[in-house]
Amino acid sequence: MTAVLSPTGRTTITRHRERGATDREDLLAVLEEALVCHVGIVRDGAPVVLPSIFGVDSDGPDDGGTLYLHGSVAAPWLRESPGATLCATFTLVDALVLARVAFSHSMNYRSAVVMGPGRLVEDDAERDHALRLIVDNVVPGRSASLRDNTRKELAATVVIAVPLAEASVKARTGGVADDARDVAAGGWSGVVPLRIAAGPIESDVEGPVPDAVRRRVARWGGASDAR
Amino acid sequence: MTAVLSPTGRTTITRHRERGATDREDLLAVLEEALVCHVGIVRDGAPVVLPSIFGVDSDGPDDGGTLYLHGSVAAPWLRESPGATLCATFTLVDALVLARVAFSHSMNYRSAVVMGPGRLVEDDAERDHALRLIVDNVVPGRSASLRDNTRKELAATVVIAVPLAEASVKARTGGVADDARDVAAGGWSGVVPLRIAAGPIESDVEGPVPDAVRRRVARWGGASDAR
Repeated sequence: MTAVLSPTGRTTITRHRERGATDREDLLAVLEEALVCHVGIVRDGAPVVLPSIFGVDSDGPDDGGTLYLHGSVAAPWLRESPGATLCATFTLVDALVLARVAFSHSMNYRSAVVMGPGRLVEDDAERDHALRLIVDNVVPGRSASLRDNTRKELAATVVIAVPLAEASVKARTGGVADDARDVAAGGWSGVVPLRIAAGPIESDVEGPVPDAVRRRVARWGGASDAR
Repeated sequence: MTAVLSPTGRTTITRHRERGATDREDLLAVLEEALVCHVGIVRDGAPVVLPSIFGVDSDGPDDGGTLYLHGSVAAPWLRESPGATLCATFTLVDALVLARVAFSHSMNYRSAVVMGPGRLVEDDAERDHALRLIVDNVVPGRSASLRDNTRKELAATVVIAVPLAEASVKARTGGVADDARDVAAGGWSGVVPLRIAAGPIESDVEGPVPDAVRRRVARWGGASDAR
């Protein structure tokens, strides 16, 4: 387990280096908060980018821990992933930064880029573990209340592992950065914070909402009671 | 201007075809609501995916209209984009769909994938127009209140155009789709709607918040007064 990210040339930040983070904890924090990532593969020489949910095992078997992706056995991009280089990018938008001039407009954000070879997960125990982590990345603790995956469900699912070793994290925080001349010229500027709002929960059944779901919604500031 | 999307083999939806949309209006609706896209390029044979803001001109000069991307002249991915195939993917997460079994967990979402050749925008009028559209995609109408870009600002900025011709749109809506046996086995299921919450606006200056900013925040359901 590496404590510090070790980006290679292709994950080294070239622009706004002051926004780069090098701690593994920063990487894991972005992955914990993100609901989806955008996975890039190369198909017939062209890039293909698809949204996907994911799971994280910071103590997983791969160098730096393991990112898990999954999908149907019928999904072309997953069939092509084993052995290929994948890029998974995670982005959290925290605020609009509305400057006095177009050029200085920006966003506050946290983003992470993970690159590495896709490994087809073949061991049944690791596959089951990965699928639980994928559910738990969306609603922490939820998988504990669900029955085991059936053999049929597992047979229909491809799980791909990517090492968390080659990665970079970038963030912008703070306010508007207009230069002095534009500030002096007047005009409005400001920041609009953004966040996810959740709920009200739409239950299909009578009875209490599971604690894991209530906690997940409460973390977003939503009411944890069902409508 | 094409009324119907004409996906090629590489943007044809292969999984959950019932979730596909073919109307150009569906594509433009996703792009209008998205704040960032994830742009994929191929570098040294590997995929690289980066988050980016963008602008849309549905009547732009490219086939199907034009997607505009921009960035610093120092950003490697933009220098490499002219002539290369780009993939830009837009994802809106609308709800967590929490089923009784792990396999049936899902999300409600709307996503769009645009693929096409990057064109370096060299005409100054088109560059200025594109940069205004990029500001206005974040806060509609904002660019009208901002001074023109200076020659220095334009010289520091690369603008790339991608046709909106080769694209696909996919969406999931609705509730949990557990099969009858899992429903009969009991257990909780439900849907957690998600949305963006904005504000309160943090103004840098005294005086009223511009109407465009107030409207943008109000569309997300936020209070349009500054804190």
